[in-house]
Amino acid sequence: MEGKAPIKVYMTRKLIGVAPDDTVKRACEVMVEFDIGSLVVVEEGRVVGFFTKSDIIRRVVIPGLPNTTPAKDIMSSELIAVDENTPLREVLDLMAKKGIKHMLIEEKGKIVGIFSLSDLLTASRRKLETAIAAE
Amino acid sequence: MEGKAPIKVYMTRKLIGVAPDDTVKRACEVMVEFDIGSLVVVEEGRVVGFFTKSDIIRRVVIPGLPNTTPAKDIMSSELIAVDENTPLREVLDLMAKKGIKHMLIEEKGKIVGIFSLSDLLTASRRKLETAIAAE
Repeated sequence: MEGKAPIKVYMTRKLIGVAPDDTVKRACEVMVEFDIGSLVVVEEGRVVGFFTKSDIIRRVVIPGLPNTTPAKDIMSSELIAVDENTPLREVLDLMAKKGIKHMLIEEKGKIVGIFSLSDLLTASRRKLETAIAAE
Repeated sequence: MEGKAPIKVYMTRKLIGVAPDDTVKRACEVMVEFDIGSLVVVEEGRVVGFFTKSDIIRRVVIPGLPNTTPAKDIMSSELIAVDENTPLREVLDLMAKKGIKHMLIEEKGKIVGIFSLSDLLTASRRKLETAIAAE
């Protein structure tokens, strides 16, 4: 990995989302189907919320809410995002500081992708392969 | 990161566990308290099971089980583990291949630690810092 490279090189550009009224059960099924740890909540083409598996643990399982709870009741409306040109190093620092494993990525103020620790795994393996090939 | 370095350099040696009869709710509280994505299930000092937040999503939230379900009902009894001297590169390859974000680490056949993508984040940041300091 190159710490100065912009995060857009590593992020996943495909945003997977649910509607505000979709149930937690539906959201979980989408997460399992796509093997992802977070979802955006989309209303009229705009990202209005975000939540992770951890949020489901914290806001649904621990308080014992039913899996019919709508996504809008458990999503975070305050979105943490960085510009797509932010260097990887800065993004990793910010994620570690905030204790988060997913970061939304913006292009000109609009959310266009997400970077997660799984993307970091992909990047690390690529980098290790390159390093070992060069030996 | 050095792909040839043994995984024991990067793993977390502190195993956090619950008992087989502890509830899913209790297990989730422990995960939140320690900010971890997985737990071992320990019986008489021996690791008998393992589960992640993803397993809770899949085995509790989607089927709509109550949060009073015991840990033993949702844990994986087949433990995926590698020896502590396995090179980081091999562990990352295996994790990517199996689509898992946590790997149990054994020393002489006994589980002594865990390596997760959060440990990879720590390792990546350390490596980037070293690389940038050397410029």
